[in-house]
Amino acid sequence: MVPHLITALTGPINELEARILDSMPAIERWFRLEWMEHTPPFYTAVDLRNAGYKLAPVDTELFPTGFDNLTPPMLPLAVQAAMAAIEKICPEAKNLLLVPGPQVLDGKPSYLMHLQRLVEVFTMAGLNVRLGSLARGLEKPRRLALPDGGQLKLEPLVRSERRLGLRDFDPCTILLNDDLAAGVPGMLEDVHEQYLLPPLHASSAQRRKSRHLHSYEEVAKRFAKLLGMDPWLLHTMHGQCGQVDFGSEAGLDCVKTHVDTLLAKVRRKHKEYGIAERAFVVVKSDGPGGTDVLTVRDAKDLDDPERRARLARSMPAQPKATPARDVIVQEGVPTYERVNDAVAEPVVYMIDRYVIGGFYRVHAQRGTDESLDAPGSAFVPLAFAESHQLPRRGVKPGASAPNRFYMYGVVARLGMLGAAYELEATDPATELEEA
Amino acid sequence: MVPHLITALTGPINELEARILDSMPAIERWFRLEWMEHTPPFYTAVDLRNAGYKLAPVDTELFPTGFDNLTPPMLPLAVQAAMAAIEKICPEAKNLLLVPGPQVLDGKPSYLMHLQRLVEVFTMAGLNVRLGSLARGLEKPRRLALPDGGQLKLEPLVRSERRLGLRDFDPCTILLNDDLAAGVPGMLEDVHEQYLLPPLHASSAQRRKSRHLHSYEEVAKRFAKLLGMDPWLLHTMHGQCGQVDFGSEAGLDCVKTHVDTLLAKVRRKHKEYGIAERAFVVVKSDGPGGTDVLTVRDAKDLDDPERRARLARSMPAQPKATPARDVIVQEGVPTYERVNDAVAEPVVYMIDRYVIGGFYRVHAQRGTDESLDAPGSAFVPLAFAESHQLPRRGVKPGASAPNRFYMYGVVARLGMLGAAYELEATDPATELEEA
Repeated sequence: MVPHLITALTGPINELEARILDSMPAIERWFRLEWMEHTPPFYTAVDLRNAGYKLAPVDTELFPTGFDNLTPPMLPLAVQAAMAAIEKICPEAKNLLLVPGPQVLDGKPSYLMHLQRLVEVFTMAGLNVRLGSLARGLEKPRRLALPDGGQLKLEPLVRSERRLGLRDFDPCTILLNDDLAAGVPGMLEDVHEQYLLPPLHASSAQRRKSRHLHSYEEVAKRFAKLLGMDPWLLHTMHGQCGQVDFGSEAGLDCVKTHVDTLLAKVRRKHKEYGIAERAFVVVKSDGPGGTDVLTVRDAKDLDDPERRARLARSMPAQPKATPARDVIVQEGVPTYERVNDAVAEPVVYMIDRYVIGGFYRVHAQRGTDESLDAPGSAFVPLAFAESHQLPRRGVKPGASAPNRFYMYGVVARLGMLGAAYELEATDPATELEEA
Repeated sequence: MVPHLITALTGPINELEARILDSMPAIERWFRLEWMEHTPPFYTAVDLRNAGYKLAPVDTELFPTGFDNLTPPMLPLAVQAAMAAIEKICPEAKNLLLVPGPQVLDGKPSYLMHLQRLVEVFTMAGLNVRLGSLARGLEKPRRLALPDGGQLKLEPLVRSERRLGLRDFDPCTILLNDDLAAGVPGMLEDVHEQYLLPPLHASSAQRRKSRHLHSYEEVAKRFAKLLGMDPWLLHTMHGQCGQVDFGSEAGLDCVKTHVDTLLAKVRRKHKEYGIAERAFVVVKSDGPGGTDVLTVRDAKDLDDPERRARLARSMPAQPKATPARDVIVQEGVPTYERVNDAVAEPVVYMIDRYVIGGFYRVHAQRGTDESLDAPGSAFVPLAFAESHQLPRRGVKPGASAPNRFYMYGVVARLGMLGAAYELEATDPATELEEA
């Protein structure tokens, strides 16, 4: 099935598809050279949005969940990629400690199946995998029942002065599946003898969307240069306000100014490409949280106090407990893909530098300009595993699912590379060296 | 479909399967450590024979053909493995030169499709791939028509003093798909600036089966120690006669002595395991050729002058043009697998250190103790790609195809590791260093 685009304007995306396909060996070589200089995150999930006139990553998740949505045929690729990752990081490793997020204790079947899938992948890649929990109050192992009749054992973490592990289990690598949005617990600090992956500065508490978008823009520009194209087709523009108190007029004015400036920039681009679309931007937290985002088509939209209050509530408080929030204004990209009449966006999964699969996130109750990562969303596995590596040359752009998915795999890897640039720039060790 | 074993004695193989499955993380770690010390061949195909009481590689091909028999779902794994291989060897490479065997000019569709498949895999891994021919008399590019309507372009090789390439094409890596059974042409000698893979000492003209079996036995012993089992369940015993003139009584006596000794050893093993099977050995060329092998159940079988003459004819002449031949006597392993009533043996394909897929070679006209690699054989693709990495723990041995194929993938990798040991031992560069 070729992803169904409901927009009339598919020219730019079909041209991009054709150009990416024509340049395949050059693109793969370009990635190969980039990965010689930059370290890919251990595992990554990238949400994409295809507007027909542009295609951009809208979220690059470094503590991905949802591995349970990958179909069994994608697993061999995941295992092979995991083998390659382990060989680089810790080839002599026997043990891997997987640290799930706090939601593990809610017992939601999909998250437990996701963990089970990760355990399978890394066991088949040649590691003894056990689960250790950061949850307070877990003093003895707890059995968690899986929907398929199996079970997972969650054990309390044991911290010695220098190492983190479980009782009778000393891992070489600790794989976090907790994005640590609430901050880094002491248990995880000063672990220097073991590989803690992803690193702590990748945690949601420390990541800034603005920093990622900046790094991604650099990646998009380099890639666009390779292909001789406009980088805007692959990235979203953004503006930053710093800390904003939505209750004060001064803070609000800054956001409004950024909204106006960005909307004007987007409209210029639309004019350049003959896009009839009405421009919009989204206002959201620059830091953690920001599950709720405000879609804005006009600075006046921000005058609605109820919407502002809802947005403010969705953002976690700043460390100093002021009412101010770090706010970012980002160009909105509508998604014009449809799966069974529901708005859809592709999600691409990677381990190390390899695309291992993907699926569509669909949401029947959401619009083309809204976030689909919300309660009520569902997942449609697609044949990414077979097709993202097997494009068919010579097929008319927009007509072949493998070609479309190959392009998605390329842009998702650009998102991952952006995260690699970002993590280098924010690495405390690097900052120390440079100081 | 679980491979159907027609022998009553499946106990040892089911026990091996259970043990391999139980030890999966330890086995994968063991391979990981071995590949830190030893370089895997670039690509390898291993023929296995499952007798129910033992499972052993019977041929480890370093210039594999038959990629056309791998099904499309196996290709993503091949591409990913090729990416990993290139990253290690020549990450900056733009160009790969593929040198097919002389059979390319026969225009046999299966070999052309095989080449096309290799071109696809390495193109998708990010290389510009072109085909250069060693054939004399090819002075300008020749177009070869493919059964699917496509075509391949075969170009004359261009040799400069230091480099090998094509007109306007300077490759970093030269991938040989010609086993050079007739010897190494001057064109390929003294290529020191580029990667010539597999290396020339892997060519059929220079490989000795006895050397490989010796290296493989070492690998099998190490692996058997890891699992606490008898290495004989995984390898075949053999004896060497050196050069034998089948016309002379002295030469024949030496072969007969080896046949007697080896048959006695095999019978002892059969007794130990309660195997009712009648022991047999095969007599064949130690060097290239040896497509015809003599199955011998008693030294007296060698008295038949007609069979001896047929065997002698199947072996290429020695360099000194004497009637003598390098001969090897090897324990025979019957294949007790059946696919649709035809005798079958699994063939497993690898790129770098990764299993990428496999199929069954079946031959309706051949017996369980005969070579199936002969005219009239056919191929049945099996779901290796999905299953060799996805064993199911807890399933009764012999009842699950994924578990059986995982075991086949392990033993095939042992064969490949044996070839890695062999190539290290026969590397002229190493020999020079040690001298």
